[in-house]
Parts: sequence; structure tokens; C-alpha cells
Amino acid sequence: MGSGVSSEEERVLRLAARFGVAQPGVAMGIGDDAAVLEPPAGKRLVWTVDAQVEGVHFRREWLASLRDAGYRSFMAAASDVAAMGAEPWCALSGLELPAELGDDALDALTAGQRAAADELGTSIVGGNLSRGPALAITTTLLGTCEAPISRSGAQEGDGVWLAGPVGLAAAGLTALAAASTAPHLAAAIAAWRTPVARIRDGRALAGVAHAAIDVSDGLARDLGHVAAASGVRAVLDAELLLEHAGDTLARAAEAVGRAPLELLLYGGEDYALVAAAALPLPGFTRVGEIRRGAGLSLRTAGKETDLVPRGYDHFVTE
Amino acid sequence: MGSGVSSEEERVLRLAARFGVAQPGVAMGIGDDAAVLEPPAGKRLVWTVDAQVEGVHFRREWLASLRDAGYRSFMAAASDVAAMGAEPWCALSGLELPAELGDDALDALTAGQRAAADELGTSIVGGNLSRGPALAITTTLLGTCEAPISRSGAQEGDGVWLAGPVGLAAAGLTALAAASTAPHLAAAIAAWRTPVARIRDGRALAGVAHAAIDVSDGLARDLGHVAAASGVRAVLDAELLLEHAGDTLARAAEAVGRAPLELLLYGGEDYALVAAAALPLPGFTRVGEIRRGAGLSLRTAGKETDLVPRGYDHFVTE
Repeated sequence: MGSGVSSEEERVLRLAARFGVAQPGVAMGIGDDAAVLEPPAGKRLVWTVDAQVEGVHFRREWLASLRDAGYRSFMAAASDVAAMGAEPWCALSGLELPAELGDDALDALTAGQRAAADELGTSIVGGNLSRGPALAITTTLLGTCEAPISRSGAQEGDGVWLAGPVGLAAAGLTALAAASTAPHLAAAIAAWRTPVARIRDGRALAGVAHAAIDVSDGLARDLGHVAAASGVRAVLDAELLLEHAGDTLARAAEAVGRAPLELLLYGGEDYALVAAAALPLPGFTRVGEIRRGAGLSLRTAGKETDLVPRGYDHFVTE
Repeated sequence: MGSGVSSEEERVLRLAARFGVAQPGVAMGIGDDAAVLEPPAGKRLVWTVDAQVEGVHFRREWLASLRDAGYRSFMAAASDVAAMGAEPWCALSGLELPAELGDDALDALTAGQRAAADELGTSIVGGNLSRGPALAITTTLLGTCEAPISRSGAQEGDGVWLAGPVGLAAAGLTALAAASTAPHLAAAIAAWRTPVARIRDGRALAGVAHAAIDVSDGLARDLGHVAAASGVRAVLDAELLLEHAGDTLARAAEAVGRAPLELLLYGGEDYALVAAAALPLPGFTRVGEIRRGAGLSLRTAGKETDLVPRGYDHFVTE
């Protein structure tokens, strides 16, 4: 159909063809006023919504193609489900599309959404199409679980456990924003463009972790949320963090001229998981501990300094 | 707190204070990565997402205040739940806010969302805040029902049944867009600014209606969807439609210089319900019938003419 702009109805048909997959418990998918679901008996549902807006969360020139925008927006929403220790079940996709966005671009975008959904074993069962001044992708996901892990259960004596790279996506974003051609940036750019929601690591939280959150706005800020919600103090260990991050982050940080520890503490959008647990969590590395008190600190060579839990805020420029 | 712009975290606290209401089956609301729900046993869920974007769905000067934007966006999403014959259960609110939108404006907006949720006996249990180039409100709603009513079950011999005003909101929008000060427009302007999702009428569909849809894009277009999905032909009766609409629409149409029948067939955003059923539906008026065949026609003084199911399309200017 080329790069024209089809009507809304034709586009809904294209989306139905793209997304229409049988998923257990989905009685009706795309094509009616609402999707119809049969919730699994005896399980709880977790429910989240997340938006990625062009010019705010991404610029088109930072992407290999709009496929990345579709992929990463879906993964960002699914990461909230992972952080609750739940399995993604199904999703709705709300798209705001600028008038000039052609069918080819829309196809790339929805191919990315579909690829992400497939990787997580879930499917998109409906959505909404609207015109908008900028491309915006809103994903709402339902997940299922036995016992969700909240932010508020961290206990004195727990370890702070981390799964997945942190700071790498921020290095990638820095490189993309500067149009850097330095070497050693491929992993960082991939971390920003195509992050993966850590569903399997989230599953490991069940029955063990006392609290968890995904690292979307920066480790300091997100772990700060856990500490505040749990009424405890979190201590991060710089050496353990740097060891967890390894050479990949060190090289990327050098290539973009930033300190690895700054990227680790304040860089977001890797969608790592951080949890508080008394016992080891498979797939996680211990990077600190939970103490009595409030706030957040960093231990470097045995010395502790307070951390301000800053990170990305949509309404305050820091 | 005046008309400043608070940080994202402060705004989340304001939203938690605005929306935090106990709702049956909601184990955790605002403040974690996801809401946690306990679905009612033995029921099906219906799930919808809808967006209202400034400059596309509304202009700020057409509203009495941003309260209207919050209210009507919530009702538009809830109308999809009504059209399935379901009860709204709970909602998530995704807001894209321009940098200059102050806390007072946000408070007005969320007051409208809360008022709409209260009227429907539901609550907002979470959401997402993001910056955006234009104000956009994305509402995702879960509803519960025994047996959802789809668009695809209309049968030859069914009546076409209508609940609620149709065309009045389009008259109101015409008046607002022209900044008209003609008399007799109050009802039309209210119909556009503060439509109400017809949950009670939706409830009447259960076990009786063969198909239903809400009239968001115009009766011709939306009933056209039912005819196409059901593989039947729908016939609308002009006299019955005009009688159903009554003096309120006649006067509003005159005030804005448009034909009542044109508003009835092609005007959207009243969120009336239209259904196909063999038996009378309480609260609905019979305005036509379902025949063998395909497409849509209008009967005027005993003569039938084909109707093109046009109406609002986001990507084609008609």
C-alpha cells in the first residue's frame, strides 16, 4: 500500500492483521468497542499504562526506524508488569499519529510493537487510533500473578539486588543525542533503542522479594521510591555497582565522556529490576543493603555519602 | 498551591489525593508500578482505551474549563463499556501535559475525570504522567459483564433501537467553533461539553440485544459498522429519527443553520447507544430495522435511498 495515508478504517484493518493473535483468555480482540477477556481463576491482575511521546521520550533521528519506537514503548510498559513479579497477559495500543505519518511508518511502528509482544509471549488485543500533533504511543498492559511485589515491603537487613544493565541506555542516549561516532557504543545504543522487559527476572521475585521496582528514571530515583514507600534507608555500594556493570559500561562511559557511576545512579530507561530481599534472587546481583532510617546513600571505599534521589522528572528541568 | 508547575512526584501525590477511592476488587491503587486487581469470579472483563487530544478532539476555547476535557474524555471511554452491555469497574488515566500547563489547570482537568468516574460509580486506580506538545488524555477502562454485546450479531428482522440524543453534540460543536451566540443552543453545547456514558441503557441490552455500538463518529458510520460486522443491511427511518430527536435538536439545528437529519446521521460525540434487537429495549426508541443484504439506507416518506456510512475519520478529510 506504499507510503500513503490510509483512512482510519483501513488502518484498523491493518492493525487487526498485524496484531490478531489468539491468546488464552481473550474472547474478542480488535474490531469491537472493547476487547473481551476471561480472567484466569484465582489470580490477581496487575494493570499499567505508559506513554512514549516523540520529542519527549525520543527523537526520530535517534531510532534506526520507527520499529524501535514501537518496540521500546511496549517493553517500557511491560517492565512495570515485570517489576510487580507478574506475567504480561495482553495489551491495548493507543496511537496518536501526526497527519503526515504514512502507512509505511505506521507499519514499522506496529511491527516493533508486535515483535516486543511476541518476545514476551503476549499480544495486543485492541487499541485506539487518533490524530495528534506528535507521534505518541500509549500502551496499557494487563498481567497476571499470584502475589504482586509492591514498592513498600523492603525490610531492615534486606540486600539490594539488581538484575540487568543500568546506565548503559543513558550512555547510548548521550551518544545518539550527540550523534557520536565513537567506537564501543553499539551495546549502549542497543540498550537505549531496544530494551527488554525482564519478565523472567520478575518471576524470580515471587515469594522471595519484599519489594521491587523497575529502573526507568534512574537507580537513585527509583530505589529512592522503594526506600520512601517502605520507610527504610537504602545503601548502594559503588564497587559492587561498578563490578555488576563491568567493562561494557566502562567503555561506553568513556566513549561519551561521562563517569560510569553517574550513569549507574542517574541514567534511566534500561528497565533493569531492583529488589529488596533477605535471600539471594537468582539472576540478580547484590549491590547494597536496606537499613533502618530514611533516604539513600552511596558507599565508596567504606565511606558513605547521602544521595539525592534525582533522576528524570517530566515537569522539572534539573 | 497556585498555578505553578509542580514536579512529577508532587503531581503524582496530587493525583493520588484526587483519585484515591476504595473500589471493590482493587487491592492496590496509585503509587506503585501497576495497580493490582482481583477480578470478580465468573465474570468477563471488557477493556477499552480512548484518547482525547487538544487541537484534534477539542480546543480549549470550546470548553467552559479544563474540567470539561477531563469529564468528556472519561465519558467517551466509558461509553465503549456501555456499548458492550458492561459495567465500568476501574480506570487508568494517562496524561500528556504541555510544559506550561499549570497545577490549577491540571486540578480542573482531574476534577472533571473524578466527577465522571463518580457519576458512573467507578474509580481511577492509576495512570501515567508525561510531558507532551499538546494536552492529551488517554483513558483505559475495565468493565465487567456476564455476556458482552458485540457489533456482529444483528439479525434480519431485528429492529434498530436508539437510546439518547444524536446530532445534538454536533450542533453544539458547530456553535462553539463559530463562537455563535444564537439562542436555543444551551442543550447542544452541554451535549458536546459534558456527554454522559449510557451505562444504564447498556445494562438493558443484556440478554436481549443481538448487537450494539455507541455513536461516537456519527449514526450512519457507527450503524454501518454493525451492518458490516453482522453481514446485514440496516434501514433507518427519517420520521422516527426526527421524532426521537424532537424540538431540542430542531431548534439547535436551526440556530446553527444545519439540517436536523444531517446532524442526526453524521454528527458524532453524543455517545448515544444504537442496538439491534428483536424485542423492545427499555429506554430505547425504534428508529429502523435490520434486513438481509449489506450497507445502510434511509427511508424518507416511504422511499429508500442508500446512505454512505461517512462520519468522522482521523486520517481522511471528507
